[in-house]
Amino acid sequence: MSVTFPEGIRAAGVAAGIKPGGALDLAFVGFSDGDAHVGAAVFTQSAAAAAPVRVSRDHLSSSTGHIRGVVLSSGNANALTGEAGLAAAKLMASSAAAQLGGVDHEYLVCSTGLIGIPFPAERIEPGLELLAGELGTDSHAGERAAHAIRTTDTFAKEAQAVSDGFRVGGMAKGAAMIAPNMATMLCVLTTDAKLTPQRAQSALGWVVDQTFNRITIDGCTSTNDTVILLASEVGGDPGPDFEESLLEVAAKLAYSIVADAEGGSRVGRIRVGGGATVEEAERCARGVASSLLVKCSLLGGDPYWGRVLAEVGAAVVDVDMTRVSVAYQGVRVCEGGLDASAHLSVAERRHLDQRMREREIIIEIDLGRGDETVEVLTADIGHGYLEENRGTS
Amino acid sequence: MSVTFPEGIRAAGVAAGIKPGGALDLAFVGFSDGDAHVGAAVFTQSAAAAAPVRVSRDHLSSSTGHIRGVVLSSGNANALTGEAGLAAAKLMASSAAAQLGGVDHEYLVCSTGLIGIPFPAERIEPGLELLAGELGTDSHAGERAAHAIRTTDTFAKEAQAVSDGFRVGGMAKGAAMIAPNMATMLCVLTTDAKLTPQRAQSALGWVVDQTFNRITIDGCTSTNDTVILLASEVGGDPGPDFEESLLEVAAKLAYSIVADAEGGSRVGRIRVGGGATVEEAERCARGVASSLLVKCSLLGGDPYWGRVLAEVGAAVVDVDMTRVSVAYQGVRVCEGGLDASAHLSVAERRHLDQRMREREIIIEIDLGRGDETVEVLTADIGHGYLEENRGTS
Repeated sequence: MSVTFPEGIRAAGVAAGIKPGGALDLAFVGFSDGDAHVGAAVFTQSAAAAAPVRVSRDHLSSSTGHIRGVVLSSGNANALTGEAGLAAAKLMASSAAAQLGGVDHEYLVCSTGLIGIPFPAERIEPGLELLAGELGTDSHAGERAAHAIRTTDTFAKEAQAVSDGFRVGGMAKGAAMIAPNMATMLCVLTTDAKLTPQRAQSALGWVVDQTFNRITIDGCTSTNDTVILLASEVGGDPGPDFEESLLEVAAKLAYSIVADAEGGSRVGRIRVGGGATVEEAERCARGVASSLLVKCSLLGGDPYWGRVLAEVGAAVVDVDMTRVSVAYQGVRVCEGGLDASAHLSVAERRHLDQRMREREIIIEIDLGRGDETVEVLTADIGHGYLEENRGTS
Repeated sequence: MSVTFPEGIRAAGVAAGIKPGGALDLAFVGFSDGDAHVGAAVFTQSAAAAAPVRVSRDHLSSSTGHIRGVVLSSGNANALTGEAGLAAAKLMASSAAAQLGGVDHEYLVCSTGLIGIPFPAERIEPGLELLAGELGTDSHAGERAAHAIRTTDTFAKEAQAVSDGFRVGGMAKGAAMIAPNMATMLCVLTTDAKLTPQRAQSALGWVVDQTFNRITIDGCTSTNDTVILLASEVGGDPGPDFEESLLEVAAKLAYSIVADAEGGSRVGRIRVGGGATVEEAERCARGVASSLLVKCSLLGGDPYWGRVLAEVGAAVVDVDMTRVSVAYQGVRVCEGGLDASAHLSVAERRHLDQRMREREIIIEIDLGRGDETVEVLTADIGHGYLEENRGTS
């Protein structure tokens, strides 16, 4: 499982004392031969990008996509921490180089946790020394790395896929501040396929757009989002299957993030079809997925299609409601923009009631304008989200 | 108080049986001489605009801004109700004309309540008959009208202002689905000033932009938003004070809507200064005001400035964080994009702790880029909001 599933990848997770109480909080994922291989990354677009994001952007560019590994910390996001934060993020990379060889810019760095709090820089060098002593290529090492990047995640998120001649692995953390344009999520994807830096970067961009950019938990854009792809080049040149396998692993991780939304109990799969363009279908799906009222309905397991169409009306200005239909769990409750639940038989109603209690709710909206379809994943909003986030400073 | 405060305005509120249990649910506000005078209106921009919105738009245009009054109902929004809904909204106007004189298009109509449910059209004619018998020009009549438009509002919202030679009154309902671009809110403003339809419409547009378009509760755009201004022309031509008085009354009503947010306990006043343009200051204020995480911090009374700057970074792509500061209740907690709470004295911290328990929290953000300032009102998100909205169909 996880990041160590492909050949040529090593990882570790240790307790460096960034989090209180001895929890795992520092991870490394890199190449097991210690050399530099192919790396690619996609970062948050926030102007408040955290120090590690700024340092990683620089390093990826200086190294022209040839890196030795990634250091990831949890417990403190090192965001809005000024010059001291920037120095700490650089120290994460230089300590990795000191322990594992190579030069600073061959290491990327990521952090996640509370923002605006000075980063405990004194934990970095001892932490990297610990990491260097724990590196392994087995699944246990990968699991510890996945645990070390958790914040309020209730479980470690790992996924893998295997195809003809190559493997793909991955780990992620999510929980809150998850929105279009990524948000507080970190993800490391690994493969043993032989890729050029260009193909790695373009495959990663394509995959992120269809997975991590199409999930939302709270609509909040984060300062730290980073998705990294490492390719060990142990195997051969993969066929066109590679992008599909990478998509499969990223989609599993994206789903795990929504399924583990802070305080959430349900996943909503918002599927908009019949769009005249991908853009309008996407705007519509995002609008429904982000609606606080739709999230409340998901919490209650209530197929309240009226709130869905209110969002459709806000998203697509020239929509013809008489052509729009909505189904919950495959049961058509709105047809031609009007209530269709009166036409349901008693058995159909009972079936819908039962299926609205499931862990995943599929809301299908047909705009009746064309052939484009977009799916966005969302979570309900639970009382736990409010409690988790009411006080943290 | 309320809509009957100006001269020449009459109103009523009755129980027409649209809501269960005999609650007030049908209101009228019009001119006490029974004639047509000046009317203006601003409507939701949703493509899913409810039947009464579509009918009122037509009537306002056919009557060239000369109307006899407004019929308002609560309990059913008559939205997403197709041709039958359109017929019901037209019946509200024609029944008013039958009871009170004039022609159909001299009456505007508004509805608020659940969406997607067939409107009980059989209640309309008897309801209008009741209304016609209850019309009065005293404050009691105005109060009953204000009560009759409540849905989940915990109190009736009324306001008034008096200036040299004219009076302004108003009533509103809000509670949820309140967002930029208005949302499920209805408001009737009245005055005895002598206005042309042109001045009435332009004053109303100016006022709505600065009040009802700058509040947010849940970010959800509604199907029914309508703000109407009625001018009885009893008094003289008002000076330039008129727009200020109208703004004063609308601002009070907008504040009441946020103060009575569904399940909310606090008002957040998000004041963004130092913007290079009004647009960026507004985008920033809206971003902070809409953030679910900021709303959770308001619930907890937590001055967590990091979440505020995360929104600033998402809203203003080229912001220089080293010039940004944030104050809660007048206490600077972030300076130059960094935590400034370490510099607070024990007394200052205690003062801030105390003031964070107040009913209104002022968050001031200085972007350090220019002189433009925009204020947006928001509410915290409470457990009551989730319970209120988890099941309704």
